[in-house]
Amino acid sequence: MENLNRYFDLFDQSRTSQKAMEELNHLFTEDMEFVLNGDKKSGIGNWKLFMERVFAANSDIKHMFEGWKKTADTDQYETRWAVCGKTASGKVYTQTGKDIAKLNNEGKIIYLENVPDNTELFQTYKEL
Amino acid sequence: MENLNRYFDLFDQSRTSQKAMEELNHLFTEDMEFVLNGDKKSGIGNWKLFMERVFAANSDIKHMFEGWKKTADTDQYETRWAVCGKTASGKVYTQTGKDIAKLNNEGKIIYLENVPDNTELFQTYKEL
Repeated sequence: MENLNRYFDLFDQSRTSQKAMEELNHLFTEDMEFVLNGDKKSGIGNWKLFMERVFAANSDIKHMFEGWKKTADTDQYETRWAVCGKTASGKVYTQTGKDIAKLNNEGKIIYLENVPDNTELFQTYKEL
Repeated sequence: MENLNRYFDLFDQSRTSQKAMEELNHLFTEDMEFVLNGDKKSGIGNWKLFMERVFAANSDIKHMFEGWKKTADTDQYETRWAVCGKTASGKVYTQTGKDIAKLNNEGKIIYLENVPDNTELFQTYKEL
């Protein structure tokens, strides 16, 4: 679960640190799948494009998470999270939700699903 | 307005830095007034008690703000802000709102009013 525990901090640090971005990308398998508010994408290349869009849209972003827990009788991990951010245009906002993840045998993230409590947040990224 | 511009970052840094806490306290006059969700307190001593309570209740907290602006035809400054935090018991949360401030002739903060969009947040601190 170490890769999951590093995920949110590396996400935030990736905004200003190329090293953190590389470490973040290495948490995932090449063929990872990610789901944003119900919209599924595949491959680390699409993940990188998503991250570029996040940091183009945000001048600052900070995640906090409660802690990953295995969901009983499944191969999934879950945690609740909270975000505050500042858009490129200078507006501040918050969001809360949960993430669902799956790991491969090496502990790399093969699946990451973002489930915001407010489903409007990730509309911007749906056109990816 | 320099003291106002340093306020939110020093607030967050004060959780782990005594130096930041001292710098934060020096942004204010000794007889400053602060208002939390309609409840007014006076004096830097009560402010310090409030900060102790914030950090006892939160294991992490991060503010972002849009930028202080003078309110036309008044001596007040305002900014919107967003917060994400993690409580001492491990729950994550967010809050948004605005702050209203007044400065003395030296630029020190003599009045700071916190106006959360959701008025439930600061109930905890009302017993101060």
